[in-house]
Amino acid sequence: MTTDLILLAHGSGGKLSHDLVQRLFVRHFSNPALLPLDDSAVLEIAGPAGMRLAFTTDSYVVSPLFFPGGDIGKLAVCGTVNDLSMSGARPLWLSAGFIIEEGLPFADLEQIVASMADTARQAGVQVVTGDTKVVDRGSADRLFINTAGVGVIAPGVQIGGQRARPGDAVLVSGTLGDHGMTILTQREGLTFDSPLQSDCAPLNGLVASLLAAVGPGHVHVLRDPTRGGLATTLNEIASASQAGIEIDETSLPVREAVRAACELLGLDPLYVANEGKLVAIVEQSVVSQALAALQRDPLGAEAALIGHVSDRHPGRLVLHTALGARRVVDMLAGEQLPRIC
Amino acid sequence: MTTDLILLAHGSGGKLSHDLVQRLFVRHFSNPALLPLDDSAVLEIAGPAGMRLAFTTDSYVVSPLFFPGGDIGKLAVCGTVNDLSMSGARPLWLSAGFIIEEGLPFADLEQIVASMADTARQAGVQVVTGDTKVVDRGSADRLFINTAGVGVIAPGVQIGGQRARPGDAVLVSGTLGDHGMTILTQREGLTFDSPLQSDCAPLNGLVASLLAAVGPGHVHVLRDPTRGGLATTLNEIASASQAGIEIDETSLPVREAVRAACELLGLDPLYVANEGKLVAIVEQSVVSQALAALQRDPLGAEAALIGHVSDRHPGRLVLHTALGARRVVDMLAGEQLPRIC
Repeated sequence: MTTDLILLAHGSGGKLSHDLVQRLFVRHFSNPALLPLDDSAVLEIAGPAGMRLAFTTDSYVVSPLFFPGGDIGKLAVCGTVNDLSMSGARPLWLSAGFIIEEGLPFADLEQIVASMADTARQAGVQVVTGDTKVVDRGSADRLFINTAGVGVIAPGVQIGGQRARPGDAVLVSGTLGDHGMTILTQREGLTFDSPLQSDCAPLNGLVASLLAAVGPGHVHVLRDPTRGGLATTLNEIASASQAGIEIDETSLPVREAVRAACELLGLDPLYVANEGKLVAIVEQSVVSQALAALQRDPLGAEAALIGHVSDRHPGRLVLHTALGARRVVDMLAGEQLPRIC
Repeated sequence: MTTDLILLAHGSGGKLSHDLVQRLFVRHFSNPALLPLDDSAVLEIAGPAGMRLAFTTDSYVVSPLFFPGGDIGKLAVCGTVNDLSMSGARPLWLSAGFIIEEGLPFADLEQIVASMADTARQAGVQVVTGDTKVVDRGSADRLFINTAGVGVIAPGVQIGGQRARPGDAVLVSGTLGDHGMTILTQREGLTFDSPLQSDCAPLNGLVASLLAAVGPGHVHVLRDPTRGGLATTLNEIASASQAGIEIDETSLPVREAVRAACELLGLDPLYVANEGKLVAIVEQSVVSQALAALQRDPLGAEAALIGHVSDRHPGRLVLHTALGARRVVDMLAGEQLPRIC
């Protein structure tokens, strides 16, 4: 590493996070299931009872614990359900590991656990195993939650960041930046005329609808643009597939309140976290069915075609701006919004 | 709950932990896979490709991060490998979620990750998916790690706390209290003539040897006596099976240095955490083969028969003391040793 200490930016989901993953985790843990670095590992169980499982984990350290549109518990279920869904898996089971700072009000914990249970029911998954650790005051900030998840991948599904191909269409399931700007404005105590609300939602139903509508073989990549936002996610896909991705600024759906908050705070919605949106890269031939399938679901009502995969500038994300310019958009550098999820 | 705030003892693995699990997690998350409250959830995948998976999670918050015999990374791999093994599963895949306090030296993190990778190789498992979060200084204590794990349970294996039956033999795979007393004496800065060392080790090989030697159907319960120690583990089994468990104080293997440290600090080795030991409850007819199988493995060299399951005092653990008395031993009350794992 170029630095001797771990910095906040190592957890940003952006460039330093990727460096850490490559130089530390990939080097030490290297194995075929880890290497694609997709949202979930895909695991083959061999033999007559063979099948493919998806397995993923995320820790949640969001501050504050409660925010408009959700709380850390809802986030912890949605995030892991969504990571499983992005491999095309049907999410089935979650684990829940709680790290609690001594002194957390029991009522807060109960509200969060109830929220996890509600969200799990909504997503049709079960929390089947768990763990609780309590640390002394000052050794954690109220509550951290880890969830891991297991799902089953149906035959015919082949989804992964490396599968984007020139000609494919790039869709996004709705407006960008709602979650990140909600957390940030809560933390800063800012209020706006039209209040912001996190988009935090389980996307497994939306993915199932999409796969059913266009056939699983025509969906090449699914990814939820969380930490680092859409720009980082599309950079990851461009890098994994060694294809170029071109998007049109005017086609990007952004809520007016989010746009205003971003302008006020000097942030770019392209880099702001989402917790209830997905990027789908599908074959050009199915783009209208795909868009229609997404838009039929309330969670995809504002889905949009935002660009395409190209054979120019492999590994790069290029934005066609509203003014007709084009610029290369890199993944997030530094840490824009710590503890957003 | 009888209290309005979460206390350290809620994370002890003892009585308050069990209250929290029952009154909060079981109530909100209730489902058939969660309810046995064994070390792993056992998940049935139906259909022609049906199989049974084990799934478990633990967070590790041990302080200090490095200790004689291991570090938080080794512990995080062993703990989850062992929880899977205690369901009779063959552990296959782990996730790793890191919550890092800003400012942790990169070299410390690398040493811990390398230790995880070494231990995973030793146990024959792969770390296939992960996540890193970084929180600001003061919001965590250096490093917490969550691991979740997935394994496959072979046909014929039926292991669970509720399966202890009167007449069964109770075995322990080696000396008690080594891990907990190592951490505690490190933290207190105590030194002894014969230095203490954590027993932290992956037990999947030992379990495989045991199952192969006596046949999977004859092993009724496996459990690793971690937080809360042997007394808490045997209480859990007695409670789950509604059988009584009787153990002989004189048969309990305890290293002299651990005994001395416990006496000095006023602790009972029955309640001190182990990280490389298992309790096996097997049919009486296979006890000598079981003991021999354990003792053939270096990790079970000091295995001992310590008691039996009884039809008296159902749900209770009874200790026959060295002086010929008998006393009921309850699960750990309060918090003896915070942040031991």
